Amino acid sequence: MTNRVFIAASLDGYIARRDGSLDWLTGIETPEGEDYGYAEFMKTIDAVVMGRKTYEAVLSFGEWPYVKPVFVLSRTLPRAPGGECAGVLAGEPAEIVKGLREKGYGNLYIDGGRTVREFMRAGFIDELTITVVPVLLGSGVPLFGDLPQGIALNNKETKTFPNGLVRITYAVERRGA
Amino acid sequence: MTNRVFIAASLDGYIARRDGSLDWLTGIETPEGEDYGYAEFMKTIDAVVMGRKTYEAVLSFGEWPYVKPVFVLSRTLPRAPGGECAGVLAGEPAEIVKGLREKGYGNLYIDGGRTVREFMRAGFIDELTITVVPVLLGSGVPLFGDLPQGIALNNKETKTFPNGLVRITYAVERRGA
Repeated sequence: MTNRVFIAASLDGYIARRDGSLDWLTGIETPEGEDYGYAEFMKTIDAVVMGRKTYEAVLSFGEWPYVKPVFVLSRTLPRAPGGECAGVLAGEPAEIVKGLREKGYGNLYIDGGRTVREFMRAGFIDELTITVVPVLLGSGVPLFGDLPQGIALNNKETKTFPNGLVRITYAVERRGA
Repeated sequence: MTNRVFIAASLDGYIARRDGSLDWLTGIETPEGEDYGYAEFMKTIDAVVMGRKTYEAVLSFGEWPYVKPVFVLSRTLPRAPGGECAGVLAGEPAEIVKGLREKGYGNLYIDGGRTVREFMRAGFIDELTITVVPVLLGSGVPLFGDLPQGIALNNKETKTFPNGLVRITYAVERRGA
């Protein structure tokens, strides 16, 4: 039972520009059929957990990219699932994870800036796959936030793509680094 | 004539803890003789430019690690060079670079958090080599700062070391990304 992050970030650690735009990401020249490991990754998880802002951003893309149930964290959205969303949840990371595991979702994809930062801070991320895009945005929505203590990581795999993207998968090894 | 950065950073983009400490870096288990490309890099530069804080931190290490002249940026240190320092300079990045090139130092190693951030913001960094250490510090001295505009980079080389460090060399391709 593993909580995983799979996300692209600029070299300076942003996952979106300040206004949320992803042009620096969507504009990357990508060979046909290259998904940077996304489909393989999706096979390893049972459900996706994301914040409301990320959910609304994904909805705006038009095409729904998820093949697994998506749970949205929100204190304002109606509780009843609607549209593409399998459920709306609220609470601390510990409660969210416990609740989803009781429903049989053992391996979770934790997605979206604020949600990743909250789960990381609370110690509920086990694996991080970051695809580093060769750009400095200079400002934006940060991937990482303050932590109460350092976290030692274990580099499990590095893969460099011909267009310069570098995907690194880390396992969380130890809190208190 | 190239201005280069060669620096280690945590995955969350810090080059030192908040109190300046580098235990997370100096504590890395490194095979004997492995310098992560440092000696090769030093051959490519003519002089080092660093801020006062970095200079004082390096002095505190005991052993002086530089085989090229080191110029220290400071508005408070005495102008006359002393000890290990080849000269004390003050001014904007453009003036610093111009002055050193007039003295025959064409290829500069720009070092230290504040200095790297200032030179980057002013458009005076041409190449960035970052060695990403598998740790999240959660807070500290940031490598990257706000930029007036994005900067497109070109990944020239990625190298993964057996202990999980990932060294990536980027050329600055274009400002305005």
